[in-house]
Parts: sequence; structure tokens; C-alpha cells
Amino acid sequence: MISSDNGADSNRFEVLTQTAANTPMGQLLRRFWQPVGLSRRVLTKSAMAIRILSEDLTLYRGESGKVHLVGGHCIHRLTRLHTGWVEGDEIRCMYHGWKYNGSGQCVHRPAEPSSISDKTRIAGYPTHEYAGLIFAYMGAGEPPEFSLPRNQAFERSGDLRFARMEVWPCNWFQHVENSLDPVHVSFAHQMGRVGEFGRAVTDAIPELSYEETSAGIKQTATRSAGNVRVSNWTFPNCNHVRVPGLTDGDPWIDTANWMVPVDDTRTARFSARSVASTSPEADQRITRYFEEADGYNAADYHEALFEKHEYPEDPLVRLTSAQDYVALVGQGVIADRTRKRLGKSDAGVAFLRNLFFRELNAIKSGQPTKQWRRLDKPIEMPIPTRPEAVTS
Amino acid sequence: MISSDNGADSNRFEVLTQTAANTPMGQLLRRFWQPVGLSRRVLTKSAMAIRILSEDLTLYRGESGKVHLVGGHCIHRLTRLHTGWVEGDEIRCMYHGWKYNGSGQCVHRPAEPSSISDKTRIAGYPTHEYAGLIFAYMGAGEPPEFSLPRNQAFERSGDLRFARMEVWPCNWFQHVENSLDPVHVSFAHQMGRVGEFGRAVTDAIPELSYEETSAGIKQTATRSAGNVRVSNWTFPNCNHVRVPGLTDGDPWIDTANWMVPVDDTRTARFSARSVASTSPEADQRITRYFEEADGYNAADYHEALFEKHEYPEDPLVRLTSAQDYVALVGQGVIADRTRKRLGKSDAGVAFLRNLFFRELNAIKSGQPTKQWRRLDKPIEMPIPTRPEAVTS
Amino acid sequence: MISSDNGADSNRFEVLTQTAANTPMGQLLRRFWQPVGLSRRVLTKSAMAIRILSEDLTLYRGESGKVHLVGGHCIHRLTRLHTGWVEGDEIRCMYHGWKYNGSGQCVHRPAEPSSISDKTRIAGYPTHEYAGLIFAYMGAGEPPEFSLPRNQAFERSGDLRFARMEVWPCNWFQHVENSLDPVHVSFAHQMGRVGEFGRAVTDAIPELSYEETSAGIKQTATRSAGNVRVSNWTFPNCNHVRVPGLTDGDPWIDTANWMVPVDDTRTARFSARSVASTSPEADQRITRYFEEADGYNAADYHEALFEKHEYPEDPLVRLTSAQDYVALVGQGVIADRTRKRLGKSDAGVAFLRNLFFRELNAIKSGQPTKQWRRLDKPIEMPIPTRPEAVTS
Repeated sequence: MISSDNGADSNRFEVLTQTAANTPMGQLLRRFWQPVGLSRRVLTKSAMAIRILSEDLTLYRGESGKVHLVGGHCIHRLTRLHTGWVEGDEIRCMYHGWKYNGSGQCVHRPAEPSSISDKTRIAGYPTHEYAGLIFAYMGAGEPPEFSLPRNQAFERSGDLRFARMEVWPCNWFQHVENSLDPVHVSFAHQMGRVGEFGRAVTDAIPELSYEETSAGIKQTATRSAGNVRVSNWTFPNCNHVRVPGLTDGDPWIDTANWMVPVDDTRTARFSARSVASTSPEADQRITRYFEEADGYNAADYHEALFEKHEYPEDPLVRLTSAQDYVALVGQGVIADRTRKRLGKSDAGVAFLRNLFFRELNAIKSGQPTKQWRRLDKPIEMPIPTRPEAVTS
Repeated sequence: MISSDNGADSNRFEVLTQTAANTPMGQLLRRFWQPVGLSRRVLTKSAMAIRILSEDLTLYRGESGKVHLVGGHCIHRLTRLHTGWVEGDEIRCMYHGWKYNGSGQCVHRPAEPSSISDKTRIAGYPTHEYAGLIFAYMGAGEPPEFSLPRNQAFERSGDLRFARMEVWPCNWFQHVENSLDPVHVSFAHQMGRVGEFGRAVTDAIPELSYEETSAGIKQTATRSAGNVRVSNWTFPNCNHVRVPGLTDGDPWIDTANWMVPVDDTRTARFSARSVASTSPEADQRITRYFEEADGYNAADYHEALFEKHEYPEDPLVRLTSAQDYVALVGQGVIADRTRKRLGKSDAGVAFLRNLFFRELNAIKSGQPTKQWRRLDKPIEMPIPTRPEAVTS
Repeated sequence: MISSDNGADSNRFEVLTQTAANTPMGQLLRRFWQPVGLSRRVLTKSAMAIRILSEDLTLYRGESGKVHLVGGHCIHRLTRLHTGWVEGDEIRCMYHGWKYNGSGQCVHRPAEPSSISDKTRIAGYPTHEYAGLIFAYMGAGEPPEFSLPRNQAFERSGDLRFARMEVWPCNWFQHVENSLDPVHVSFAHQMGRVGEFGRAVTDAIPELSYEETSAGIKQTATRSAGNVRVSNWTFPNCNHVRVPGLTDGDPWIDTANWMVPVDDTRTARFSARSVASTSPEADQRITRYFEEADGYNAADYHEALFEKHEYPEDPLVRLTSAQDYVALVGQGVIADRTRKRLGKSDAGVAFLRNLFFRELNAIKSGQPTKQWRRLDKPIEMPIPTRPEAVTS
């Protein structure tokens, strides 16, 4: 048992789960570019309401094609701004026509005679589209260069790319802990039809090792000499793994999952996937598969999963989502970590918590946090050449 | 900016939004007859549960045809009283048969040998039916004469009359502010198919003027010399306007909207409408239209309105309801007025708040409030003779 | 009026309605075997999540056929345990494979090298199946012999037996009070088609008498010389009554209802019924009736019952459930007993409250409570030989 993680002081863990703007974790997360939406869901001249990091916001795409993220309510009488009209790269409130640009500055008040002060503004956050996702920088000051979230796996030319998201009713930190916990793969992902994925990675209980990098954590799970799985976890909430293809012979799939708090009781799980193109037939088949899986959100099947033990028949996306959903949401909306009993096999969870405690202590004491930066050289993420048979 | 409305003291505005019996606004609203139901929905010998001004009540119609409004629960064991039986003009609890008359006095306890004291009673409020609505007086003491809510527009012989209601999940004061805000018509009601209504009243930004009357507020919105719109607002929560007919050539429609708190997070929006009879064909067409629109409640389409931007195809009732719904509910359940930034074009909102602050201050200091009384002479509400073209 | 039950001190009644483990009533209820599930719903090698007495638990049936009741969450990372696998008579967590036996002791942690301490355990409660119900003992120390809940009416050989349950959104004590209140039968159960049941027991207002027994309360309701109804109420929450059969000539039905808190705002109403076998045709008809009624839960018809006054067409189970549902849930989730006004005809309610106050005072002062034990000789529960005509 790792005693430092079994304390009875619930406040010790609350700092990990609370993410509003006035909390240490809220400040820490806001120092990084965060995914906030799917590019393809925000059509030109359309707007949608989103909630991220406990903030109600308006995400819209101007006529220029650029995406903008501004406050959720008009400052005048507080009507939801996304119910208005996009005009050029600005958005106009449906109630009295006040208009805002992408930085949140009010630029027109049709029925007001006076000029507009610089203070007549709502929130406005820079955005950047990458790998099918819309990222935003919601922190103070100038945004950092869009570098840390980049990954050559999502920049290979010719790859098929798929982005999707689900929203689950539990705290974000349960998601992040899960990504530093390769032992769960041997159990939670063993159920049902797991095909090559099962043969390759759910085989045996792995040996674990963790190493802090310039970008986050290198996680190594060794199941046998020929079965070593490496994950490249990027601070503060992205995990990059390689998983087997849909059927034997399909190329392995690079997957990056970002776990972003909607608020403290809901989490958006954004996924970017990249698959090497092989033949037109395979490309078409793989594309169709991901399109079909696109609308799946395990939360829509909560009752089937928890009361009827019914899992989707699916070789990858829907099944693993459903399994993780049961494992994470089953811990409660905000897991009571004082009741948990970590073991040696939770080394990744302990490593993760300690790393966050260190950064949060810096925030709380006004000290600089680590200057996380993209890896100089990508981590090697080996693919097992000959997956072994399933060990029951 | 009108600084007096932009203060940071949230308590300043809470007095406007809190309406339970023990609050200043609750006491003020209870000094007036308030609509509590639709006449046609309360059939003879039937009872229904209603909630008005945060009170759970029983509304029933006795065999005499008279409507009664009494407490929601039997005093004996607290079962909901509307689930019992109407007998004569009294109502009997389904649990043990205790019976109450229309004043709330218990008049029979079948299994009890002792006589009934005068104190064995529940709430009982006088009612009055008018313009298709059931009004009640929920205040202390003798009810005032049923005079202030009357309006000759709803007493013209031969008119077609239509009463309806919707319940929306937001505070009542957002509704009332909206009725003193004719600028919103130029934007919120511009969307979709607004026909003659659009041509007539959503044309240009109006010049506003406000004048306190013996009954409430006379509101004048001047869009051009030939386009002057006057509303007759009756204290504390009724707005009477004239709107164009359903198609060109139809008579204009007198509409009175009462905005009554269900509680502090929901509002019942009662409407009475009166239309001059013209030809049997037109009367039938107009009647059919209002009957079809009768069941519409914008709250049932919340997701379509807020997430899909889907508005009903309708020339009047459903469309304008949907538009107001988005504008009002989009402000939040109870709008945070400390975050709002009123402008010159919000003169009506400021006028309204100041009028209420004056009356509430009288309540709080135990002083008499204004003796509001019906207008000696109706306000003239002109109809534009030649609506101008839409200005985009 | 019985003044002792009309006090304004709400805390006086809270002790009756609060049932979590750390409350006096929670401790009292946990000293008795309580029904927690239906035997037929827990198949061999299956697990389900239940909530009883505010505790989240896992109910599963091992390969031996024995039912086990253990904590709801794995102690390791808190995932819901019922989503895992039953292996033998043990259950394994789906997240990391930790395994527990029926006493809640962890017996296997696949990825952990160290041995398991006795303290690595979750809750584990003894179970006993009887009359189609699964009972559990959730108190401290050794469970009492399974004796008090037994009743010869459910042990007659050859009888048809039917067990069912409903869960209603109100506090358990409203249910218990209702079972000591035979006057309500004359009103609440008078509505609709009550057939022989109506003729026999809803006839007139009864004379009431109450007597404390070794097991609980003997309740006698005398409507006339030939119409005496006796109920055998067993401490703390079971009522045994006899009700008429489904049609004239059918044997009367022994019914025992246990009212068990799910938590303080929901109650599980478990019913066991026993009917003498007569002819194959009658047995088949009666069996089919109870099978059809099995899935009925009045809570699923809340709106129909409260807003539309629509009751199920049914001679017994569904109709009486619906009627009691309206009477009990209509009191509010947790009835405000300070607002109630008990009368002489509520003698049973007063008797019941006083009995509970006595036992709870013993708990609070650390004194022994009464040693409730099964009746030495069953109470005679007469069946009216010739039901009288309905008195309207």
C-alpha cells in the first residue's frame, strides 16, 4: 500500500477535482491549449453553446472560416449569444442586436446613441484547429505557441484521421488517472469481443515503469519481452497510445485522448485518431467504421451498461468507451479518494497525483510551474510483431 | 449607461425576483387579482393541482359552476386534495374523506366523533372569471373590487376571444421587463415569418417614452410618424398591446399578457386575446388558428430552440412565444442583473424597476402603496394605417 | 385531537424518518432482518446493484445458488462491483480484478504482489430467502435467528405464492403509518372497481382497537358484528392482512407488506402473498393475474394518477397500489408532520409513533430495546362469511 495516497483528508484530493477559474487546478489547466469542440460540428456562419471548465461559452465559425470562442451571454441583458446571428466574423445577439467580435469586444449596439467603451466586452479566447479538434487558450495573458499538443503521429501525410468526443457524468480526474493505469486493460477491456486488441494488450498483468519527460510522462507496460506497450502522456490531460487495427492486418491506430472538464461533474473526452492509408478498400472500410461509431456516447447507454450488463458489439471504439465508462462513472460522480486503497499496481496513479500536487503547490505559493514543452524526439511506441494467444 | 441599474449589490435586485408570501414582492403581488388558471380547463366537478406564487393549491369547479381555490393539501394527513371528489361546491379528500368548502373551512370528518372547530381549515381564496381566465385574490383581508384588470377591449360584444397559457422555466421579472422593452421587437421578433407584424412593428428602432398612469404605465414607441405603437401596462404584471392580424386584412388583435410567478424559477404567462368578428369564414379561420396554437408551450421545445435553432412555422402565437422564450430563458433561470449593462434604449426597464422599488420600499417601511385604479378613459392605441416595407 | 402528535417541533418527527446507519432509526431497523430483493430477479451467477437503508450494495447469487450481499463499490478504486463477474460464490471487480467473497473480504488482487490483510474488505451482510424474498441482516454483531419475519400463512404447503415489489418516491414512515390506519380503506380504496374487496372491507367506518403483542401490534377494525378485520403488524415494518380473492368464490389472500427505506426519500414496498390452491383452472387464472400485475409500479404512472385521475382497471394489486400511492406520495416526499392534525380515528398512527418513540429513546439512551419475538400462537384473522352490500 502506498500510504501517501490513502489519507483521510478529503481536501487533499479536492484540489485535483475542482477546475473552475478561481481554483488552483482551474488556473493550471488554463495555462494550456485545451480542446473545446469538434471542427466538423461548427459549420461556417453557425454558432453553438458550449460549457468548458465551468464556463458557459459561445463557439462560432465566421464567414472567413475562422472559429471564435466568446462568452456565453450578451453583456446587455444576458441572453444566450449563440441564439443570435453570425455576421462576417462577428456575432449578433438575437434580443437587441448587440454585436461582438471574436475577441469578445462589443462593436455595435443598434439602439444606443453613445459610443462603445473598451470595457463593453465579454470573454474572448484564441482558438486553433488541429487534428479535427478546436483548441482554445482560456488562460490569462498571451497564449503559448501551439506546440505542446502537437504530435507527429497526427501530422503524417496521407493518414486517415478521425476526431470524436463523448461527455460523461463524472469528474475529469478519474479519466486522467485511468490513462495512467495500464493494468485496467487486462480486466476492464477483456470483456466481450476484443479481437486483436485483446490478444495484444490484455494478455497478462504488466510490469509498469514511469518517467517524467519534458512534455509529460512516458509510461511503459511490459507484459512480455515481445509485448511492451508505451504511452506518451502529455501534461496536463492528453494520453497518446497505439492500439491494434479493426481486424487482423489493419494498421495500428494512433489515438490521443484529451480529458477536459465540462465542469466538475462532467468530462468531455476528445479523441483524435490517425491511421495509415493502405488500400482504397481498407481505407473505405475503416472510414465507414469510424463514421458509424461517431455518434456513440456511452452516457446514452448508462442504464443498459449498469443495469443490464449490455455492451455494444464493436471491435474497438464503442466497446472500449463502454468499458471505460463503467469503470470510471461507477466510481461515483466525484470519486471519494479517501476511501480508495491504492496498491503497487497503481504506481501510475500515484505518479500522476504527485506530479499534479507538485505543480499545484507551485500555483498556490505563487512559484513558477514547470515549463512543459514538446518532446525533442518522439517516444518510440513499439507495435508487438506477433501478439500472443489470450491467457484466460 | 444608467448607473443606478448597474450596481454590484445583488440584494438590490433579489427583492424584484422573490415572490413567496413572506417577501415584499410576494406581499405586493398578493394585493392584486392574479390569473391562476384557464376557465375552460376546469370542468364542472373536476379539480386540479396548481402552483402559484410558490403556493401549492387546489383549483376546482363546483356543481354550481363556481370555481374555488383552496389549499393543496388536506390538513389531516396532508394528501393532495385535488385527488379527491367534488361534492356540490365542496371537495372531499380521497384519503379519509375530510371535506372542505370553497373558503377552505373543513365541514365534514366522517370518522371523527367530535365537532369541527373554525381553525380546522386550509387556505381559501376568492376567485373571479374574466376573459377566459380564472383570477384569484391571494392577499390578506377583503379583496379589492375586480376593476383594475378589466379592459374594454375584452368586453366588446361580438368579439372572438381566446385565452391560453404557457409556463416557462425562468423568473417572472424577466417577463415583465420584456414587456416594457419594445426595442427587442426589432430583433427578437424579426426572425422567421413575421408577415404584417414584421412590416408594422419590427421596422426600425423606436423612440421610447414612458408615462405613469393611474393603472400602470403608458408606453409609446415611435418608429415613424405613421408608426406609433402604444402599450397599456397595468400594475403589477399585465401588458396590453395591439398586434396585427393573422393575414393582411384581418383585424388587429388586442392581447393582454399576465406574467404570474409559479414560484421564483417558473412563470405562467397567461394571455387573453380579443378579435373583432368580420365574416363567418374569417371568424372560423381565426378560431381554428388559435385552437391549434392552444397546446403550444415553448418550454416543450427548449432543445430545438436552443440547440438546433428550430423555430415553429407560425405567423404569430407560436413564433413570438418561441422568440421571447429564447430571449428570456436564455438570461438564466434568475438573471443576474448585477452583470447586465443597461443602455438608453432600456429606458422602460429602468422606469419599471424604479416604479417597483418605490412600491416595495413602501411595503418594507409599512407605508401605503399607490392606490392603482383602472384608467378613467382608455389609452388610445393607434393602428398604423399603412405599414411600411421591412427595413432589413 | 391528540395533542402529543401535533407539536411544532419538527425534530421530534425527524427521528422517525431518518434511516441512515448513523441515525437512531437506522440503528433500530438494522437490528431486524429486512427484505432487500426478490429471489427470482437474482439469477445464478448474476449480480445487481441495490440501494437499501441509504447504502449502495451489490446483491449476487453464486454458483452454489446462495445469495450474497456485499458493498456496492470495490475498495481499490471504487468501481461498482455488480458490473464485474461472479466466480464460484465470489465476485470480481471489472476494473482490476479484485475479488471478494460473500462476507465482503477481498480474496484476490491479481496485479498485487503482497498478501491481503483482513482489513481489505467491504461490507458483507448475511442473507436468507423466504417467501420469494431475499432478506438481509445489516446490523452489527451476529444476526438474530430468522424467526420474527416468519408466518405460518407463508409456510402452508400447496399454497400459491407471489412476491413482488414497487419503489415509491416518499419516506418509509408514511407507508408504515398507512398500514396502521384502516379508516383509509373506506375512502382511498373505495374508488373504482373494488368488487368483493369493496363489499367486505370498505363498507363502513370501523371501530378501532390496538394491542401490543410480542411481535408487534394486533390491530382490530370492527365495521359490524360480522365484519371484523384483524391485521397482524410485525415490528418494525411488516403488515400482514387478509384480503378478498380476485372474484367471488376465490380464496382470500394472505398478504404481508414490508416497507423498507431505499433511503429517506424512497421506499421499497415488498409484498409476499399466499393463496390456497383450489382447482387447476382457478390456480392458473390466479397465477396469470399475479404474473401480469408483477411489473406494475405505481410510480411509473405518477402523472396519470396525479394529473389525469386515471386509475388502472384491476380488481386488486394495481388498483390498491395506485390508490395508496396517491394517498402516500401526495403527502410530499417527507410529510411535514408538524402540519398534520391527527384525530381520534388516527389512533393507530398515534399508537405506532409512540411505540417507535419508546424504542428510539432506548436506542438514544443506550438502553436495551424490546426483545421482539414471533407470536407463540398466530393471531386469528377472521374472514367475513357474508359480505354486506356496499354502503355508498
